[in-house]
Amino acid sequence: MSKIGLLGCGTVGTGVYEIINEKKGNFFEENNYKIKKILVRDASRKREGIPGKLLTDNPDDILNDDEISLIVAVMGSYEQEYPAIKKALQLKKNVVTANKEIISKHMEELLDLAKENGVTILFEASVGGGIPIIESIIDTIKINKINKVQGILNGTTNFILSKMTKEELDFDEVLKVAQDMGFAEADPTADVDGFDISRKLTILSSLCYGAYIDNDDIYTRTVRNITLSDIQAADDFGYVFKYMAESELYDDNTFGASVTPVLIGKDSVTSNVNDEYNVVSINGNIIGQLSFLGRGAGKEATANAVVADVIKVLTKSVHDYTHLKFENEYKSCGIERYKNKFYLRVSIKDEVEFAKTIDIVYRNIENVNLSYEDGKVFLITDELTGEFMSTLCDRLSHVTEDVFYARIIDNIL
Amino acid sequence: MSKIGLLGCGTVGTGVYEIINEKKGNFFEENNYKIKKILVRDASRKREGIPGKLLTDNPDDILNDDEISLIVAVMGSYEQEYPAIKKALQLKKNVVTANKEIISKHMEELLDLAKENGVTILFEASVGGGIPIIESIIDTIKINKINKVQGILNGTTNFILSKMTKEELDFDEVLKVAQDMGFAEADPTADVDGFDISRKLTILSSLCYGAYIDNDDIYTRTVRNITLSDIQAADDFGYVFKYMAESELYDDNTFGASVTPVLIGKDSVTSNVNDEYNVVSINGNIIGQLSFLGRGAGKEATANAVVADVIKVLTKSVHDYTHLKFENEYKSCGIERYKNKFYLRVSIKDEVEFAKTIDIVYRNIENVNLSYEDGKVFLITDELTGEFMSTLCDRLSHVTEDVFYARIIDNIL
Repeated sequence: MSKIGLLGCGTVGTGVYEIINEKKGNFFEENNYKIKKILVRDASRKREGIPGKLLTDNPDDILNDDEISLIVAVMGSYEQEYPAIKKALQLKKNVVTANKEIISKHMEELLDLAKENGVTILFEASVGGGIPIIESIIDTIKINKINKVQGILNGTTNFILSKMTKEELDFDEVLKVAQDMGFAEADPTADVDGFDISRKLTILSSLCYGAYIDNDDIYTRTVRNITLSDIQAADDFGYVFKYMAESELYDDNTFGASVTPVLIGKDSVTSNVNDEYNVVSINGNIIGQLSFLGRGAGKEATANAVVADVIKVLTKSVHDYTHLKFENEYKSCGIERYKNKFYLRVSIKDEVEFAKTIDIVYRNIENVNLSYEDGKVFLITDELTGEFMSTLCDRLSHVTEDVFYARIIDNIL
Repeated sequence: MSKIGLLGCGTVGTGVYEIINEKKGNFFEENNYKIKKILVRDASRKREGIPGKLLTDNPDDILNDDEISLIVAVMGSYEQEYPAIKKALQLKKNVVTANKEIISKHMEELLDLAKENGVTILFEASVGGGIPIIESIIDTIKINKINKVQGILNGTTNFILSKMTKEELDFDEVLKVAQDMGFAEADPTADVDGFDISRKLTILSSLCYGAYIDNDDIYTRTVRNITLSDIQAADDFGYVFKYMAESELYDDNTFGASVTPVLIGKDSVTSNVNDEYNVVSINGNIIGQLSFLGRGAGKEATANAVVADVIKVLTKSVHDYTHLKFENEYKSCGIERYKNKFYLRVSIKDEVEFAKTIDIVYRNIENVNLSYEDGKVFLITDELTGEFMSTLCDRLSHVTEDVFYARIIDNIL
């Protein structure tokens, strides 16, 4: 008999408990699969709908219980969950987790440990909430060589950008609303500065390319610097802003990976992925582009993904996660040498700054689509290398401190 | 040792052969899985890259070969494949097929037959080409109750509508181009009159609702009647035309299912799904909306889906297809009693017809957004029942024969 141990009873943990215990002849009731113990910080505190005898504050009550063959780790704490997951695997228990920090840092190690012990570790909920992207990648790489991953992978920042666009508000205003709604953390750094997204991109890219893609090799820029005037200028040029995670494998065995604000055409599918929705696109040499769209976070979506993994373990219909290889070695080439169109905004105080800006721009770039409004110069360039663009922005920053630029992605679905 | 028998060596069959025989240490080479025999109409005709000794024109050479444990049926012929698939299952061979006609008519029977014989039948490629939608549905219904399916499920008609919109061409012009490009059949009936889509909707809906949804219960209207003037009028009103497959379960155990031209808002994701791309969206009570987007047809996409199924059979990592139940009984309630906004175009010859049209419209509908151009009245209504709308169109057809209407879907992602 397979019993389940749950580490964590926060939002996702409660969601998992509810789905598993929702009666009406569901899979768990039919097969008599039950949650036997739940690890919480304070076992004396009552939890609505959950029997007190299930609760414990001692991880060993779960890890050392031979009847428990499956650990569901949804505490969201790196420090507590990482040792618990390792121990569980060593004790030959299967593991399902939603912890993207642990998976982005230790995927290979944990998969190896699982393999050694004849068990498995699944982590669908670590990226893209309810979107079944991990399994889709595992399936796709059996036949295809994937050379590109693109995605909107963070609900909080996508919500902020969508609301800025729709309601013509500035970044800080919307961030405050999102915080009041519980949509953004009090300390929003992980979301708005791209660390959360970059972890997810590490996981996706490593799986897609069969090579460990280090977090440090992902060029990451904050989304904080997008102003309402940028969004309106982009709109006039026919684009919308998105906070995009991207990685691409090139023919010379190098890769580029980035988490940056970008502009994409309004006639693309991706441009209309708004609010809390996430989208992940992969590019296979046979299948072409596949895109997956759904709620990227939230109690229900994440709990759904966790429980789907649990069912896979219990029915043994698990794809070969433990046989994944990360043997390929690719070098990061940054994103500086590849050509893109760029959007550029330069704030100017007076005619002198205006003249200097225009001078630098026209001396350096051939084809420019330029407009001026409210003390700001907005422009769209032709294709330039990232290297060229950052040199140009360096020069402009001697004229004024307020220079902002972003890549334009034209070939997106 | 598992050997594979291939029924059919047309476009998809050739694609399957190529993927399986593409060396460089792929899954098939590594595990020594091979295609042993290929059924073709004329075994004496040479085929580029395929050894002549593999070919046979006698199905029994494959079906009666005990070494062959898996049949891949990609002839695309109902008459030849249906008996071959049945016989294969009875002989305890697994089956992978892309034939949507067979699956839409006999899914339940064939799954039962597979179960009786301890084998399985997979059919991912029967809907949505390379999009892994069948497996995603099977996974989703383990946890969710799905109450809605929506999709653009036919590449040919989506290509036609996209091209009409982008290049301002009329339906017949684009159809001819599509035929010249080999994108549309010489007899395009199955595509443009909705029969192809309706079969796919039968398969998806039956899986989602656990009930056999009969093809006859799907209200199907041709896409032929959309004119360039309709597309331009829709654009002015803020919409685009799509040929949409939809089914929905209602609380009173009834369902509505349709394949019809519809108008959807330009700010939706679905409105930007163009050309040969397909999209399928499902709605689960826990997961919310999930959408899957990719190439809906073509050699590579379809062959990819077939081979993915083949790998699932060979690695026994098959989800429980043969345990699917179709025991629920829902009655079709048509699509007439539910409320929608509608788009309406009435062509008029003279002032008398104009006056009569306006009179009927304003007498019957309260809020109307109306425009007039080149002898045509275009309008968008408030929410009305389908029943009311068809009565109204009946009345208008006494004024002029050329009346066209389409539902507007507002709540689409």
